[in-house]
Amino acid sequence: MNFLKGNAVVGQSGGPTAAINATLAGVIRGAKAAIAEGYIGKVYGMRNGIEGFMREDLVDMSSYSEEDLACLSHTPAAALGSCRFRLGDPERAADDYETVLRVLKAHDIRYVFYIGGNDSMDTVLKLSRYAVSVGYELRVIGVPKTIDNDLVCTDHTPGFGSAAKYIATTVKEMLRDIAVYTVRAVTIVEIMGRDAGWLTTAAALAGVNDGIGPDLIYLPEKPFSIEQFVEDIQRVQMQHPAVLVAVSEGIRFADGTYVSAGTSSDAKDVFGHTYLAGAGKALERVVKERLGCKVRSVELNLPQRCASHVSSLTDIEESLTIGAAAVTAAKEGKSGVMMTFVRQADEPYAVTVAAEDIGGIANAIRSVPDEYINDEANGVTDACMRYLKPLILGEVPLVFEGGVPKHFIIDRKG
Amino acid sequence: MNFLKGNAVVGQSGGPTAAINATLAGVIRGAKAAIAEGYIGKVYGMRNGIEGFMREDLVDMSSYSEEDLACLSHTPAAALGSCRFRLGDPERAADDYETVLRVLKAHDIRYVFYIGGNDSMDTVLKLSRYAVSVGYELRVIGVPKTIDNDLVCTDHTPGFGSAAKYIATTVKEMLRDIAVYTVRAVTIVEIMGRDAGWLTTAAALAGVNDGIGPDLIYLPEKPFSIEQFVEDIQRVQMQHPAVLVAVSEGIRFADGTYVSAGTSSDAKDVFGHTYLAGAGKALERVVKERLGCKVRSVELNLPQRCASHVSSLTDIEESLTIGAAAVTAAKEGKSGVMMTFVRQADEPYAVTVAAEDIGGIANAIRSVPDEYINDEANGVTDACMRYLKPLILGEVPLVFEGGVPKHFIIDRKG
Repeated sequence: MNFLKGNAVVGQSGGPTAAINATLAGVIRGAKAAIAEGYIGKVYGMRNGIEGFMREDLVDMSSYSEEDLACLSHTPAAALGSCRFRLGDPERAADDYETVLRVLKAHDIRYVFYIGGNDSMDTVLKLSRYAVSVGYELRVIGVPKTIDNDLVCTDHTPGFGSAAKYIATTVKEMLRDIAVYTVRAVTIVEIMGRDAGWLTTAAALAGVNDGIGPDLIYLPEKPFSIEQFVEDIQRVQMQHPAVLVAVSEGIRFADGTYVSAGTSSDAKDVFGHTYLAGAGKALERVVKERLGCKVRSVELNLPQRCASHVSSLTDIEESLTIGAAAVTAAKEGKSGVMMTFVRQADEPYAVTVAAEDIGGIANAIRSVPDEYINDEANGVTDACMRYLKPLILGEVPLVFEGGVPKHFIIDRKG
Repeated sequence: MNFLKGNAVVGQSGGPTAAINATLAGVIRGAKAAIAEGYIGKVYGMRNGIEGFMREDLVDMSSYSEEDLACLSHTPAAALGSCRFRLGDPERAADDYETVLRVLKAHDIRYVFYIGGNDSMDTVLKLSRYAVSVGYELRVIGVPKTIDNDLVCTDHTPGFGSAAKYIATTVKEMLRDIAVYTVRAVTIVEIMGRDAGWLTTAAALAGVNDGIGPDLIYLPEKPFSIEQFVEDIQRVQMQHPAVLVAVSEGIRFADGTYVSAGTSSDAKDVFGHTYLAGAGKALERVVKERLGCKVRSVELNLPQRCASHVSSLTDIEESLTIGAAAVTAAKEGKSGVMMTFVRQADEPYAVTVAAEDIGGIANAIRSVPDEYINDEANGVTDACMRYLKPLILGEVPLVFEGGVPKHFIIDRKG
């Protein structure tokens, strides 16, 4: 162990997920253990990420009870608030770095834990290098979160499993809903994921226990063809009248233009604005025009990233684990790393936590690999299902009050 | 008791809900008790409502186990399938009535249970009168279902409580989500309910345990004003940056035109079609134009009527009860009635089941009353909250398999 005494701070950045607070709870739990061991003095939370840190907007979380942490880990979105700000290059944003250093020193902070996605890992990398360059002993650890599951060097990201479970459950329920009528109808479900189709693959999990899943799945990893889409639907309609199609918001034509942009660019609203329809809405119009049958598009929207009432227990427990492991890694002397998951086996599922140098992680995107997409580019493979299945297992023991889940709100504490 | 021996048939009609299968399970449970007593011989299900019945598309449900019924009552949408067909006037649709009579006689059916909304109650009324007119002894009982809660003569409808719980939970989670950033942003949640605002009032339940609910709620019961809407948002923005607005899809201007139609009538898509935006999308553009801040609209869409994974236990248990009570009412000799709930008390909540003559029920709509809407017409009153609160209480003990809920699918049984 590389003994470094000081305080710790933890922040959250980027878009909300159902599990980012579980990771926060894991960091706090790890830090509390370190406080008991004498390594860490206090653990602070920074409000609204690095932006709030620069305003010295800190909250002392050292006395949070296990009950607080349990409730926190079942609360969606970032309890500390988030930001979209990333630290610039040190030579161009010298003032920002000096501000950060001043706040670090003012509170004797030697441990920084930053929970976030791609942009946040860039901030972790820059801050860790800056600290070295000015000779301030600091350990900066990144902990991944994103429902998009598109970070490299990790088997999956905390937050993905819960979003996937929400999507699988909701698509399954919609499959029951659309099957009640006998008329031909197409339901298009638009799922988040601008650059990678991971969340859309999760729609296939709707059929995990009864074999009835979406009829067609389209991902941004493969070029989208309107002709193929229409033919695919016609083929399914020969089997049954109600067709469910899952599409990623980021599907693109072969020339790289987004399906959403491509089919709606001429449409104007009453104010003369170009109407920005989603991919689902665009395809809804294609079905109406080309097939003439009943059609509806459903955009799963915000609940994908905040539906903690149907979180994956696997995801929440792993998020707690990786948060606590970040504290251990920092105590061991690591800095400028991101915590990762390494899968040992699909079934029975086993995963270990590691720490990877952040240099190759920030600013890279992990797409759904070819072997997870079927040859027709309209569905997923068995290999994909084997990868996905363990990530949504288990249900979280939620506390409901008055019929709705209880949430942890920092300003209401105490 | 008015002893009438014969078989029973049960059907489902209209739009799906998370509780319509619980009512079906209740009818089957009641019928099985009657089979044991010797009143009823068999209980059949009609596929796709009265339409399927006329095709003699029946399934024998007499041997369903308690385990089947438990799984069925946690499965969303209509397990028997549904239809939008309603029986016409007997003089104009004589053939249809003769077909129905023929199938009734062929299977010695003396009990018809029909679970549905407004249109279905009309079919119950017509069929019960027709049976009397031709001297065929038949007892026809309607059992209400609709997420819209807009049937008269009943305190509430089965299915509403579960939809309300889904909406309250989801809005609560979105309130956490939108609060993470510090920039001014408006989130508009569009909720089902073309004619009545009941489901939209349920958004207020998001704050039932921590007091943080939607900032503004607009219902179709009161005329909508763009000016007032913009002023309301500006006033809220002086308190906090993230504003959440719940609107019913059916909100209308003072002249009666829908907000959805009113603001999008000139917009055309690439095929030259008028673009049918929802109320949320229309208001999203108003906010962008008038306030210039970040804005997003979320249409809760299909999950409102099928999200059985977050059903209200109160709703599911009441749906089972009212289904079984329909069988008791039929055994007592009733016909041409709809089963209803009569509230005895808000807290502790108590409700009884009754049967009302259907004449005054079909084709009437129950709106949210004035005393449930605040003076500014942008929120709900304490009286409304007292009415809503008990309906979402309790969580259903779901069975998950492979991480998603287990559903009951009739064709997969046995």
